[in-house]
Amino acid sequence: MKIFKVGLVGVTGYTGMELARLLASHPRMKLEMACSRTESGLRLGEFYPFLEGLPGSDVVISIFDAREAARRCDLVFLAVPHGKAMEMAGELLEAGTRVIDLSADFRLRDVDVYEDWYVPHTRRELLPEAVYGLPELYAAETARARLVANPGCYPSSAILGLYAAFKHGLISPDNIVIDSKSGTSGAGRKPVVPSLFCEVYDTFRAYGLGKHRHTPEIEQEYSRAAGCDVRVSFNPHLVPMVRGILSTIYTTLRKPGTTLDEVHAAYCETWAQSPWVRVLPKGKLPETRFVRGSMFCDLGLVVDPRTNRLIVVSAIDNLCRGASGQALANANLMCGLPVDCGLNAAPMLP
Amino acid sequence: MKIFKVGLVGVTGYTGMELARLLASHPRMKLEMACSRTESGLRLGEFYPFLEGLPGSDVVISIFDAREAARRCDLVFLAVPHGKAMEMAGELLEAGTRVIDLSADFRLRDVDVYEDWYVPHTRRELLPEAVYGLPELYAAETARARLVANPGCYPSSAILGLYAAFKHGLISPDNIVIDSKSGTSGAGRKPVVPSLFCEVYDTFRAYGLGKHRHTPEIEQEYSRAAGCDVRVSFNPHLVPMVRGILSTIYTTLRKPGTTLDEVHAAYCETWAQSPWVRVLPKGKLPETRFVRGSMFCDLGLVVDPRTNRLIVVSAIDNLCRGASGQALANANLMCGLPVDCGLNAAPMLP
Amino acid sequence: MKIFKVGLVGVTGYTGMELARLLASHPRMKLEMACSRTESGLRLGEFYPFLEGLPGSDVVISIFDAREAARRCDLVFLAVPHGKAMEMAGELLEAGTRVIDLSADFRLRDVDVYEDWYVPHTRRELLPEAVYGLPELYAAETARARLVANPGCYPSSAILGLYAAFKHGLISPDNIVIDSKSGTSGAGRKPVVPSLFCEVYDTFRAYGLGKHRHTPEIEQEYSRAAGCDVRVSFNPHLVPMVRGILSTIYTTLRKPGTTLDEVHAAYCETWAQSPWVRVLPKGKLPETRFVRGSMFCDLGLVVDPRTNRLIVVSAIDNLCRGASGQALANANLMCGLPVDCGLNAAPMLP
Amino acid sequence: MKIFKVGLVGVTGYTGMELARLLASHPRMKLEMACSRTESGLRLGEFYPFLEGLPGSDVVISIFDAREAARRCDLVFLAVPHGKAMEMAGELLEAGTRVIDLSADFRLRDVDVYEDWYVPHTRRELLPEAVYGLPELYAAETARARLVANPGCYPSSAILGLYAAFKHGLISPDNIVIDSKSGTSGAGRKPVVPSLFCEVYDTFRAYGLGKHRHTPEIEQEYSRAAGCDVRVSFNPHLVPMVRGILSTIYTTLRKPGTTLDEVHAAYCETWAQSPWVRVLPKGKLPETRFVRGSMFCDLGLVVDPRTNRLIVVSAIDNLCRGASGQALANANLMCGLPVDCGLNAAPMLP
Repeated sequence: MKIFKVGLVGVTGYTGMELARLLASHPRMKLEMACSRTESGLRLGEFYPFLEGLPGSDVVISIFDAREAARRCDLVFLAVPHGKAMEMAGELLEAGTRVIDLSADFRLRDVDVYEDWYVPHTRRELLPEAVYGLPELYAAETARARLVANPGCYPSSAILGLYAAFKHGLISPDNIVIDSKSGTSGAGRKPVVPSLFCEVYDTFRAYGLGKHRHTPEIEQEYSRAAGCDVRVSFNPHLVPMVRGILSTIYTTLRKPGTTLDEVHAAYCETWAQSPWVRVLPKGKLPETRFVRGSMFCDLGLVVDPRTNRLIVVSAIDNLCRGASGQALANANLMCGLPVDCGLNAAPMLP
Repeated sequence: MKIFKVGLVGVTGYTGMELARLLASHPRMKLEMACSRTESGLRLGEFYPFLEGLPGSDVVISIFDAREAARRCDLVFLAVPHGKAMEMAGELLEAGTRVIDLSADFRLRDVDVYEDWYVPHTRRELLPEAVYGLPELYAAETARARLVANPGCYPSSAILGLYAAFKHGLISPDNIVIDSKSGTSGAGRKPVVPSLFCEVYDTFRAYGLGKHRHTPEIEQEYSRAAGCDVRVSFNPHLVPMVRGILSTIYTTLRKPGTTLDEVHAAYCETWAQSPWVRVLPKGKLPETRFVRGSMFCDLGLVVDPRTNRLIVVSAIDNLCRGASGQALANANLMCGLPVDCGLNAAPMLP
Repeated sequence: MKIFKVGLVGVTGYTGMELARLLASHPRMKLEMACSRTESGLRLGEFYPFLEGLPGSDVVISIFDAREAARRCDLVFLAVPHGKAMEMAGELLEAGTRVIDLSADFRLRDVDVYEDWYVPHTRRELLPEAVYGLPELYAAETARARLVANPGCYPSSAILGLYAAFKHGLISPDNIVIDSKSGTSGAGRKPVVPSLFCEVYDTFRAYGLGKHRHTPEIEQEYSRAAGCDVRVSFNPHLVPMVRGILSTIYTTLRKPGTTLDEVHAAYCETWAQSPWVRVLPKGKLPETRFVRGSMFCDLGLVVDPRTNRLIVVSAIDNLCRGASGQALANANLMCGLPVDCGLNAAPMLP
Repeated sequence: MKIFKVGLVGVTGYTGMELARLLASHPRMKLEMACSRTESGLRLGEFYPFLEGLPGSDVVISIFDAREAARRCDLVFLAVPHGKAMEMAGELLEAGTRVIDLSADFRLRDVDVYEDWYVPHTRRELLPEAVYGLPELYAAETARARLVANPGCYPSSAILGLYAAFKHGLISPDNIVIDSKSGTSGAGRKPVVPSLFCEVYDTFRAYGLGKHRHTPEIEQEYSRAAGCDVRVSFNPHLVPMVRGILSTIYTTLRKPGTTLDEVHAAYCETWAQSPWVRVLPKGKLPETRFVRGSMFCDLGLVVDPRTNRLIVVSAIDNLCRGASGQALANANLMCGLPVDCGLNAAPMLP
C-alpha cells in the first residue's frame, strides 16, 4: 500500500497546525517536509507539544526549497499568505510536483477580479489550469489537477449553503445577503492586539462589511451554479470561539408560496450522495459545535412566508472543512484515495 | 433630597440581578422590597454574594404582595415572565403605585398582535395607557406614566439602529433584514441543558429564525418611525458570551447613490442630543464590549454601493440598555430625576 | 476480523457522549445498544446531531435491560451515577457479560472507605474481583477482568502525576497537596444553575476543598505506589473551559538537594514504555489543550530548592483520558486488542 | 469642592485602561494628562471607543514630560513596566509632584532582593520613603507619602488572604504554598502568540512555578505580619477569563485541633473595620466573578483536620483591586478623600 509523501509549507499558522494534526492520523499520507522561515531547525514535536510522539513529530522544520520539495514529495500544501503562494506554487509545478494552495491566489478565474481585490498576479498563466477544490463540486477535475486552489473558509460555507437552491431554481439571484460569523482562528496566528484573548473574549464584533475579499469568490461560484451573474452582500463577524463558521444566508424565493417541504426535498436530492453535507430535519438549525473538527457542512432551512424568504443556515469548521481538511480531501482525490480517507473522525463534542 | 423607594419583583433572574446591581449604586433610589417565590426569607446579600455589604444587601427577599408593595414603594419593577406580569401590574396599579414592567405584556399597542405572538391578555384595558419606555423616543410620556412597558432587548438595538434612517427617509420600508446576535444572559437563568456552559461555550447557533416574539415589537416601532407599515425579517443568534447584543441591519437605500457622508450626517443630527447613542466615526464598527454594563448604543454605518444597501450595526448591553438599565432610566424619568442618574459608570473594559 | 459489540448505558451525559464519539471511529467495536431512561425511542443521531451519518447514529436508544444487553453485547459500559451502577453491574455480570463501570462504585477496595465517602454498597461481594482500570498500571489484570472500575478523572491525573516519584522514592509520603483545576464538563450535564454558561464563563471558583470524594481513591493508589499509607489534601477548582484537568501537585523531596535532572531521569525511566504519558522536557509545563480529546497525560516537573519541593503538573483530558477514552482502552485490553486501538487521533488544536 | 488633577503614564495597557475607566466616574478627580509614546496625538476617546463621551475622553494623549506633568497634576500614576518606572518616578518627585507607581520598582524594601529578582535599581535612594500601598495595612503612611508603591496583583490576594492568620498566630510560618490562578489581563496587552485568543481559550496552564517575581513581595509582607522570616512557594496559573485572581493558600495550623469557628472569628475580628475584605460565611468559597470590577477581596476559610491545614481562598479583581482600583484608593488617601471615593460600584454580574 503506497504511502504518499507530502510537504507542508507554512506550518506555524492555524491552517498549518490543522494539517499537521490531520496528517498525524492519516493512514496513507506521511508528512515528509514541514517548512517555516522562522522556526526552521526545530523538530515539529518541539514546536507543537500536542503532536509529540505522533507521526510527523520528528520532522525537522526546514526552509522552503521548491526543488527539494519536488524531489521528496508527491504533493505539497501551501499554507502561506496570498501573494507569497503564487510564486511558490509556480516553482513547485516547474520542479515537477503537484500543489494544493490554501491561499486565495488561484481561486478566482478572472485575473482582473483577483487584482481588484488582492494584489498584482505574477503567475496568471497558471490560472486556467487551477481547479477550485470544493470536493462536492469538482472532484473529477481535482483528481486530474496539478494545481488546486483550496476554497476560502467563508466561501465554503456560503457555496454549500445555496448550491442546491440555485440548482433547483428556488431563489432569485438578486438580493442575497450573507451574514457570516467566524471563530477567531480565522483571523490567523499573527500576534496583533485585536486578536488577543482579552480583546476577543466576551465580545462580538462586525468587520469588513461589504468589502471582505471572499466576496468575489462567493459570487464566482454562485454565478456558476445559478447560470447568471450573482452579486451578494457578504458580511463577516468575529465570534469569541476558536473554530467554526455559521453563515445565515438571506434569499428571496423565486416563487412566492414555495414551501419548506419543497425546499427541503430539493436540498436532500442535491446532497443525497454527499455524506459530508448534512441537510438537517425540517425545523432544526445547525450549530458550529456539531461539526467541530470535521468535514461536515450542516444546513438548516427556513422558509419565511411573511417576507417570502428562504433563509439557509450553513455551519462548518473553518479550519477543517474551510481549509486544511478540505485540502486533505483534495489531496486524497489527487492521490486516487477515497475522498474521506483520514477524515472520518466524529466531530469533537462537547 | 428625597430617596425614592422601589420594589423589585423577580429578583433571581438576570434582569433582576442587573437591577439589584444598578440600584446598589443609585444615589437617589433605595431597594425597599425584593420579591421571589423560591428564595423568600433569604437576605439579598446571602443570595447574591457579590452584593454583600452594598446598599440593598440587607433586604430580606419576600413573597410578592401588591398592597404591601404599593404601601411601601414609590414604584415597582416587574422582572417576571410575560403572562405573569400583566396581572401583577394590574394589582399594583389598583393598589396605587407605579409600575415598570420588563416583560412583553404591555409593549404591543395592538392586543390582537400580542395575542397572536404571546398568550391571551387579561389586562387589555391597561394597554392604552402603557408607555413604550425607550427614553430617547418617549421621555415625556414616560415621565407622566403610571405603567411603563420596558422595551425588549433585541428591539432596543433594532429600533435605535434604524430610527434616524426612517426619520430622514433614507431607506425603503421593504426588504429589511435584522440579523441579531445575543449574549447568553438573554436566555435567562432557568437551568436547562441548552444553556449549560458546555453547550454554549465555543459554539454559535441560530434560533427562532423568522419567528421570534420580538418581531412585532420591532415592526410596531419601525412603522411608527417610518409612518407606514414596515415588515421585517428578524433573526436571532446565540453568542458564547454573557452580555451584549449586536444587530446587523440590512436595508435598501431609498435613493441609489446616497453617500455614507449623507447617512452619517443624518444620524449625527438625529442623535445630537442623546449622549447614550454614539454614532461612530465613519469607517468604524461597534463591538459589544465597548458598551458592556452601560446604557450606550453604539451605531456603525456602512453604505454598500455595490448592492445599494445601508447596513447599520447596533451594539448594546442586553441586560443594561436592553432591560434593567433602561428600566432604571425610565424610573428616573418617572421620579423627576435626570434620566442618567446612577447610570453613568463607564463600560467595563477589558 | 472480529467486531466487538458493546453496550452503553447512560448515553446522554458527557461521558456517554464521549464514548459515543470515540466508538464512532473505532475500527473494531460497534455500538450495539445505547440506553437512557429519558431518551429511549430516539435514534442516537437524532439525539446527537453531531453524530448523524456516523457509525452508531442509527442505534435506537432503549431502556436498560441487563439480560438483553448480555445477550447482544460482548461488554457493556456503565456511564451512570454511582449508586445506580453497582446494581446494574451486578445484573450484567450475572447475565454473563463483562462490565466497565465509569462510576466510583468499584474503585475503592475497602468497602468501609467507600461507604464513608459515598453510599451503602449493595454489591460488596464484587469488590474483590474489580480491577482498577488505569491501563499503565493494571493492563494485565484488566485483560482478564469481568469487572473494571474505571478511574475517576481527578485521580487519573493525580496518580499518573506522582507514580514515578513514589516508585523511585523521591518524595516524602507526607505533606502532599493536590490543587486540581477541571473543565466544566466534569460537572456533568444535569441542568442546574451553577453549571449555566453565565455562571461559569469568565469566572473561577474553588469547591469541595479537602472533602471531594476522589480523595480516598487517590490515597488508595498513592499508598500502593508508595508502599505505605499516604494521606493527601485534594482540592478541586472549576475552570471556565469545557475539557481538561490540570493538577498541580506539591510534594516534599525526600532528599534535600535532589536535582531536576535526577527527577526527570526517574520519570523518563518509569514511563519509557508508556507512550501516552509524556514527560515534558525540563523547563516545560503542560497545558490542557495539548492533550484535548486524547489519552495523553502530560507531566511537567519543577524542583524548587528554596522550599525543597518537587512540584508536578499533570494535564489530561477529563472526558477522554479521565473517563471514556480510558474506558475504551480498558475495553481494548479486555477484547485482546491493542490498548490504543481507536484512540490515536491527535489532540485537537487549536 | 476641589477637583484633583491626575496624570496617567502608560495609558494603553490594561492597568492604564482600568484607571481611565475608573477615573471616568470619579467625582473628585479629573484625568488631566494621559501619556503614551506610541499613541500620542490621539484623543483618548478615539483610542478607547468605550470611553467616548465620558469624562477624560477628550484628553489628547501626549508624550511623557515630567516637568509638564508636575506643573499640571496633583499626582501622577505610573502604569509602565518595571525598570522604566523608577526613572520616571524620580523625575516626577524632583519636579515636585506625588507619584503612585503601579510597577514593582518600589515595592521591595531591600534593594538587593529587588535586584536579585528584577533589574539593577537606579533610584535606590527613594526606596526608604516609598510606602507599600495596601490600603488596609498602610493607610496612614500612604496619606503622607510622596511615593506609593502599588502592590502587585498576586501579592494583593495573597497578603490579604493570610494577614489575619498571621496576626492571630494561627498558622506556622513554614510550609506555605500559594496556588494562584489569574485571568489573562494579568499577562498584559503586548501582542504575543501565547496571549492570543486561540492560545488561551478553552485551556489552562501553569507558568513560572516557584520563580515568579511576586514571590519576594509576598514574603516581605508575610514576614512583617508574622514577625519572622516567611518563605513561600508561590505558583501562578493562567485561566481563560479576563479578570480575576483566585489564590488557594495552603498552610499548617500552629495548633492541631484549631477549629473553623476559631479561625473564622479571628478573620472577622481582623477585618471588621475593612468593608472591602469580605470574610465569607463558614462553608462558602469565593469566586472571582463576585468581585469583578471592584475593590472587594473575598476570603473563604477551610479547616481540614485530616491534614491539619488551614486553606484560605482569596479572590480579587486583578485589575481593580490588584492594580488600578488600589492605585485610586491610594490616590484618595493621598488627596485626603475617603478611601473608597469613586470605588463603590457593585461588582459586575453576571
